[in-house]
Amino acid sequence: MTLTSPLRGIIPPLITPLNSDSSLDLISLEIILNHIIKGGVTGVFILGTTGESSSLSYAVKNQLIEATCKLVAGEIPVLVGITDCAIEESLNLATLAKRVGAEAVVAAAPFYMNIGQEELLNYYNRLADEVSLPLILYNMPSHTKIAIEHDTVVQLAKHPNIIGLKDSSGNGVYFQALCNSLRSRPDFTLMVGPEEMLVETVLLGGHGAVAGGANLFPSLYVKLYKAAVKRDFEKIQLYQKIVMEVSLNLYGFGSYKSSYLKGVKASCAFLGLSQGYLASPLYEFSELEMVEFQKKFDYVQDLVLSVSSK
Amino acid sequence: MTLTSPLRGIIPPLITPLNSDSSLDLISLEIILNHIIKGGVTGVFILGTTGESSSLSYAVKNQLIEATCKLVAGEIPVLVGITDCAIEESLNLATLAKRVGAEAVVAAAPFYMNIGQEELLNYYNRLADEVSLPLILYNMPSHTKIAIEHDTVVQLAKHPNIIGLKDSSGNGVYFQALCNSLRSRPDFTLMVGPEEMLVETVLLGGHGAVAGGANLFPSLYVKLYKAAVKRDFEKIQLYQKIVMEVSLNLYGFGSYKSSYLKGVKASCAFLGLSQGYLASPLYEFSELEMVEFQKKFDYVQDLVLSVSSK
Amino acid sequence: MTLTSPLRGIIPPLITPLNSDSSLDLISLEIILNHIIKGGVTGVFILGTTGESSSLSYAVKNQLIEATCKLVAGEIPVLVGITDCAIEESLNLATLAKRVGAEAVVAAAPFYMNIGQEELLNYYNRLADEVSLPLILYNMPSHTKIAIEHDTVVQLAKHPNIIGLKDSSGNGVYFQALCNSLRSRPDFTLMVGPEEMLVETVLLGGHGAVAGGANLFPSLYVKLYKAAVKRDFEKIQLYQKIVMEVSLNLYGFGSYKSSYLKGVKASCAFLGLSQGYLASPLYEFSELEMVEFQKKFDYVQDLVLSVSSK
Amino acid sequence: MTLTSPLRGIIPPLITPLNSDSSLDLISLEIILNHIIKGGVTGVFILGTTGESSSLSYAVKNQLIEATCKLVAGEIPVLVGITDCAIEESLNLATLAKRVGAEAVVAAAPFYMNIGQEELLNYYNRLADEVSLPLILYNMPSHTKIAIEHDTVVQLAKHPNIIGLKDSSGNGVYFQALCNSLRSRPDFTLMVGPEEMLVETVLLGGHGAVAGGANLFPSLYVKLYKAAVKRDFEKIQLYQKIVMEVSLNLYGFGSYKSSYLKGVKASCAFLGLSQGYLASPLYEFSELEMVEFQKKFDYVQDLVLSVSSK
Repeated sequence: MTLTSPLRGIIPPLITPLNSDSSLDLISLEIILNHIIKGGVTGVFILGTTGESSSLSYAVKNQLIEATCKLVAGEIPVLVGITDCAIEESLNLATLAKRVGAEAVVAAAPFYMNIGQEELLNYYNRLADEVSLPLILYNMPSHTKIAIEHDTVVQLAKHPNIIGLKDSSGNGVYFQALCNSLRSRPDFTLMVGPEEMLVETVLLGGHGAVAGGANLFPSLYVKLYKAAVKRDFEKIQLYQKIVMEVSLNLYGFGSYKSSYLKGVKASCAFLGLSQGYLASPLYEFSELEMVEFQKKFDYVQDLVLSVSSK
Repeated sequence: MTLTSPLRGIIPPLITPLNSDSSLDLISLEIILNHIIKGGVTGVFILGTTGESSSLSYAVKNQLIEATCKLVAGEIPVLVGITDCAIEESLNLATLAKRVGAEAVVAAAPFYMNIGQEELLNYYNRLADEVSLPLILYNMPSHTKIAIEHDTVVQLAKHPNIIGLKDSSGNGVYFQALCNSLRSRPDFTLMVGPEEMLVETVLLGGHGAVAGGANLFPSLYVKLYKAAVKRDFEKIQLYQKIVMEVSLNLYGFGSYKSSYLKGVKASCAFLGLSQGYLASPLYEFSELEMVEFQKKFDYVQDLVLSVSSK
Repeated sequence: MTLTSPLRGIIPPLITPLNSDSSLDLISLEIILNHIIKGGVTGVFILGTTGESSSLSYAVKNQLIEATCKLVAGEIPVLVGITDCAIEESLNLATLAKRVGAEAVVAAAPFYMNIGQEELLNYYNRLADEVSLPLILYNMPSHTKIAIEHDTVVQLAKHPNIIGLKDSSGNGVYFQALCNSLRSRPDFTLMVGPEEMLVETVLLGGHGAVAGGANLFPSLYVKLYKAAVKRDFEKIQLYQKIVMEVSLNLYGFGSYKSSYLKGVKASCAFLGLSQGYLASPLYEFSELEMVEFQKKFDYVQDLVLSVSSK
Repeated sequence: MTLTSPLRGIIPPLITPLNSDSSLDLISLEIILNHIIKGGVTGVFILGTTGESSSLSYAVKNQLIEATCKLVAGEIPVLVGITDCAIEESLNLATLAKRVGAEAVVAAAPFYMNIGQEELLNYYNRLADEVSLPLILYNMPSHTKIAIEHDTVVQLAKHPNIIGLKDSSGNGVYFQALCNSLRSRPDFTLMVGPEEMLVETVLLGGHGAVAGGANLFPSLYVKLYKAAVKRDFEKIQLYQKIVMEVSLNLYGFGSYKSSYLKGVKASCAFLGLSQGYLASPLYEFSELEMVEFQKKFDYVQDLVLSVSSK
């Protein structure tokens, strides 16, 4: 399967379904992959932040790459996160991804050493040279401590093997600047991370979203994406409201810095898509919290169901 | 003159025209006020960040408030920044603003003491109680070190004297969350600071922008605003491209943290709108830098002129 | 009275005693000034962060400068904080300070505009040129968002009117680097803000501390200072332990970002040195909190008393 | 070999000597290990930040652990960094370390996921439960984005398998607070990272430093440590001055965020201790920079030699 240029639509950053001993839950993996494919997503991104990539052992990462590619079996493109502080380990993951049939790799900046844009440029150019799959940049300053600045992206977009950017900064000025500066590169994919910004992204020159909520309710995000493509503002308003309620209710419960991931995994469990286990250093909501969270989830699920046939 | 609810359109955060000794340049003040009013703006916001409010003496602040209200003479609403670390000084500015006929006051968070949301809520409620003009919140975390968080805004929006928010964070997720949460308050003004985000703001439930570039090219931003209101995507693309070129070329020259303000004031000087002086601790581009900057300015001005009759 | 070069010893950053309406409490001002002078401090620093300078109106600032100089009457040097985002207001405060007999002025970086070291250097050089009293730099990055970097301090130390640095960063590497680089300037005062670092400062080349706790227990800090000067490690251990208990118990109660100031002012009230009022945007502990805080205060006071005759 | 409680003295965070293809340079490893042991250090810490641990592949990490333990052969304790975002990988490293004879493991916080103190506490307790070697906490907020706060350390110090803290924050207030709070645990090791703070650490209750400069000039730091233990202020001044010149000249060249590591590795090459290669994403000084840097190195080396017989 070949990638379209640019990639468009909704690509869930897949949660990594885990057993209680942190091993990979292969049964849930199949369930959730079927769920999102049925929901109409354009591709799947494994080993991203939502996939808790940094918290997984290499054994689990390798197993996940192989199993996903096998289960997806070419129905949609598989994008594999290879973010790592050690470039050799990123290259190892990329080699495996290529071998088992993934379509592209995605890399955030190395995130321990404090570096500057010059070192970042150097790093990504080397990575793009050495991986044999197309490379998508992943801007995630809240987790990596360094932004891939506008000028760096423009520079890197000249590399023939760098095909796009996933921007999870939430910074609307930065994203607009890139849409403008990369106008002459219509094949370069520009996607946002925060699904709350999907509509503006699509209306103003971007190509879609790597939407965490699409693990839960893939068709909701697909419908919002299509409404945005058609500039159907009535439907945009209808779906955007629900997307914001997902965000407000499921991602911010309990004021943890990790509320988003706790909420997504608990919701997956409610939906029967996976067990709710998180990888260390994160852990699940307490039982008491779950009681409260279930109410929020039920409210949101009712909203989603209310538009499911529209 | 009464304010509409909500305020809509383009409101320039007026630069403060200065003489070389940092006194107020009244001649330029009249010129630039006429310039923006002729350009079709909906109001004017003095003593904001672009107005270098924090760098001005109280004598100059008071003189500016009086002179602006007199010169504007009711043609458009005057919004007066009263941001100050000392609430008594904010109240003094608000009292003067009221007396000379301004329509509203605007306040960012106090910015020296490190405080939490609880203290911020308390602060704004007291401020709103004590000023007799309507109060607009001003979210400017890059300068104040504290964001007015989503829940705090929702809480404050219940105060009868708090009529809106200017959000200069550039955070698209935050802004969408507020648009959603304040849907039941259609009279509450939601404006963005970064003009690069004007279109998405208007398309998705906000009311306009406090656009620094509207000091220079007011009608460009007004036309972009109107195109966004009409959802005329052809015109949106035409103007948005130029707005982004203004931003790229005039706001980021020389990699200063103060590049934006240096650029705006130098451009005002090129346009004959004011002398180029900045208030301490900022200062002007060097002569050498000005030679380079002029080229960028000329390029941008040609672009703007190319659409001036469209 | 002339300043020694360098300044040495303990200099309390005086709290600003306020009435419930935020006016200056002159009666308490006299009480606390007598208290610290009796405690053996080397000077007094008004209008610093502990003095809530940024939160005070200009009327109160002016009144405080005049009253303090009058009450101190030359017994100890008075250092006046002139930190302000508007250089004209800093100069106004410095002029008044000079006129009423203060010995030096102290200025942190302007704290709203985002600036670089080049602009900071320019700013301080201009300030030092224009004030007629000796100027002490005040490094306070947690509140100003900018550090006065090592090289900038070294550069500024060449200005004949810049006589010292108060470093409140808590950064031991930075302070050691300055002690080393300014070795050839034995008259340049190097003081720390955090009293927890007084001993190491004195042992390793600095001259003392601007110790907030010296509002409460001036003689404790004076004794610790003297022990450090004498390298009397037995006494250092005795007093340092208590200084740390002051810090642990009185500055971190209730997990507010403003816990330090709430704690200092509440303690001043317990000691009869002032009423406990804080200036907006801060406010006092709740009644419930005060009950708990009193216990901590009593514990600390007993510790202090236990060494008062040693 | 058993560890003393607490550990005392100078422990170099060993650089990882690399060949040009990023494989481990075993010849240099032997040279530098002999160099530091001859210099009198108390132990060696591999796979820390100076060791570029995060940038190394697991193959290299494993090889380094085995080779170091074999080469050191029990002459000094070997401390092995097991910092990793994935706890399973940390445990794997710890198991290997135990098997080949290391004496302790050292772990900084997991550094990709944004977590709070509660999650950090949980994480370290689990780690301490599961590793069979004693565990040393490593506070490195500039690289991990999270500090191990005072109260968290105090809590963790109760775990029987947590034997100490290496604090690389440079925060003097934090370190003093810990010295005070852990007074009742005289066996708990408190070491600083920044060698510039070695003296104050030892004078005021800490036990030594994990000094990067001890890769280069181990005996200098050992002599400074001994002078501090003896409170010999004449010698302290003599050596501290040179330690600060090392820091000023070798760690800050070229204003890179990675200047420290570039400088240490270039200096190692000058000293014949290793080749100068850095692991991606870092890279070496340019040839032009090396010419300038050599001058600084020569200046520093002369200083060090001047006291080598004292």
